[in-house]
Amino acid sequence: MKTIYTADHNLHHAAYELIGGQMTPAFECPRRAEIVLEQVTAAGLGPVIEPTRMGIAAAAKVHDPRFIAFLEQAWPAWLAEHGDSDALPMTWPARSLRQIEPDSIDGKLGFYSFDAGCALTRGSFTAITSAVEVALTGVDLIAAGERAAFSLCRPPGHHATADQMGGYCYLNNAAIAAQVLVEAGARVAILDVDYHHGNGTQAIFYGRPDVLFTSIHGHPRQEYPYFLGYADEHGAGQGEGANLNLPLVWGSAWDAYGPALDAACEKITAFGADTVVVSLGLDTFEEDPISKFKLKSPDYLRMGERIAGLGLKTLFIFEGGYAVEALGVNTANVLTGFEGA
Amino acid sequence: MKTIYTADHNLHHAAYELIGGQMTPAFECPRRAEIVLEQVTAAGLGPVIEPTRMGIAAAAKVHDPRFIAFLEQAWPAWLAEHGDSDALPMTWPARSLRQIEPDSIDGKLGFYSFDAGCALTRGSFTAITSAVEVALTGVDLIAAGERAAFSLCRPPGHHATADQMGGYCYLNNAAIAAQVLVEAGARVAILDVDYHHGNGTQAIFYGRPDVLFTSIHGHPRQEYPYFLGYADEHGAGQGEGANLNLPLVWGSAWDAYGPALDAACEKITAFGADTVVVSLGLDTFEEDPISKFKLKSPDYLRMGERIAGLGLKTLFIFEGGYAVEALGVNTANVLTGFEGA
Ligand SMILES: [Zn+2]
Ligand SMILES: [Zn+2]
Repeated sequence: MKTIYTADHNLHHAAYELIGGQMTPAFECPRRAEIVLEQVTAAGLGPVIEPTRMGIAAAAKVHDPRFIAFLEQAWPAWLAEHGDSDALPMTWPARSLRQIEPDSIDGKLGFYSFDAGCALTRGSFTAITSAVEVALTGVDLIAAGERAAFSLCRPPGHHATADQMGGYCYLNNAAIAAQVLVEAGARVAILDVDYHHGNGTQAIFYGRPDVLFTSIHGHPRQEYPYFLGYADEHGAGQGEGANLNLPLVWGSAWDAYGPALDAACEKITAFGADTVVVSLGLDTFEEDPISKFKLKSPDYLRMGERIAGLGLKTLFIFEGGYAVEALGVNTANVLTGFEGA
Repeated sequence: MKTIYTADHNLHHAAYELIGGQMTPAFECPRRAEIVLEQVTAAGLGPVIEPTRMGIAAAAKVHDPRFIAFLEQAWPAWLAEHGDSDALPMTWPARSLRQIEPDSIDGKLGFYSFDAGCALTRGSFTAITSAVEVALTGVDLIAAGERAAFSLCRPPGHHATADQMGGYCYLNNAAIAAQVLVEAGARVAILDVDYHHGNGTQAIFYGRPDVLFTSIHGHPRQEYPYFLGYADEHGAGQGEGANLNLPLVWGSAWDAYGPALDAACEKITAFGADTVVVSLGLDTFEEDPISKFKLKSPDYLRMGERIAGLGLKTLFIFEGGYAVEALGVNTANVLTGFEGA
């Protein structure tokens, strides 16, 4: 399959994130995409192509236009107020506060964030835009008849909600791609295999019957994003039944993961999907520095095989994974496992 | 008047806060209370007494007991997870997320916070408890017949909501004091003159007709806490009309502040209060490092005189103020202005 990649992702490079009460070098770094590019090339997966430069107009299909405008305009406002350092929020409109967008850039950042570790930097918006283009170029390949494609998006997207950034995510590449596929007539299921629950993707489609969201992830009682991803979230209103969360506890290995993946795939089949968008995070790996599952590198071959077994058009969207040295091999394993099945 | 003070406040000492995207030495530091103690002593205000050790049972009158339990239990959980560094939240249950208290200490911190710059440290809970005792000892003095008292609370309290910490505040000393006064039969108004809107105090009493909340503060369009403190917040339900916000824009000096203070005082008089609880923040000072009003040191004498002009029993509760060297003099000016009126 083809891989869609652009070096523009390098323009987003947060210096640090807030984790464990301290500023720490950001785990979500440019090297992540570079090592994946190296390993999918080394694995002979197929051609690497540049994204079509279509801009982010399609992002407004799932995101609040005011949020998109904020992402575009935040940096100059931050620069004027605080100088050339990463923009991070420091307060937010919690339970007893009003959902009002203030004039202050610090207030706006809090309004549009759910995470203090997710920085906007000078080049972020260009990279965010390019990641959406990478995702949508994958959609174009599927629409043109390809069985599968790999959108090597960075920054990732699955935590981004209709109007909030967080978890290293700004615009929801997978949700935008899914929506464009739906509008082109596809019946779309999303399979989110990132270690963290894809709260943004779930929230975007939660009330809708036409897109199935399935996710296997660290249990939110224990793990980020903590406030979504529980097993009792089945969808709302017309979307009732079109959401499946399969949270697993810390320490879960393939013996628990494999059956959960089977359950997600059975749900996708029952839904009658013809296209699956895979939010492909590799932070389920046993050596991931911020995660606590125990998948091993060969398990990713089996993951790819199982996804191929769905027999659907398949768009892989790159999400998380922070054990950088193994990240390329593990990603390539999913994709070659898929191709070889 | 008597000042209530305990050295226990020193047990709360955050190393840093997140502001402007960077970890900065915490503005809310122990020296603040020490210089105020020095200056009220130098001004000959009156005796300095220790608080009565009554514990924080009264805090549950305005706070969620689960939140109080969290404050008490958070440090050992944080220490076990992250080691001996300040506890700060890094994600929170924003708009599209569920209001669920997770098992994880990081999740709990986000659930019970609205601010990434407000740290819990090893000794915080003892200091928080002592600040409540300092406030309630002031209540006891008023109940025993004193005209006025100064509760030199630290950490401050007016940002703390029923179930969230933020803005250097953990338990709401002023709200707890006001509630105890009400239960003893007083008709209580709160006058919040801190530069920042007392969002916690407002939220606690917002639906109640029996406690008036008035506040003069930096406009939340421009200023922390951004998401509350607007002029259109008049109270809700039975509390309709018992909330008055007087936001002022950046750069406001006494010529704008004085009339706002008059308006707040007129409202308090019209309410028929017999007791006023003053949330006494001094960050309206022109040299305050995080604020943008332009009050000068002599203005605080006039502030004290105007408050005395209400002719009510008056409990001063210490809140913010970060221009540390001038903080003692400015605080003493309010209190001596009050005494001399
Ligand atoms: Zn992840
Ligand atoms: Zn303040």
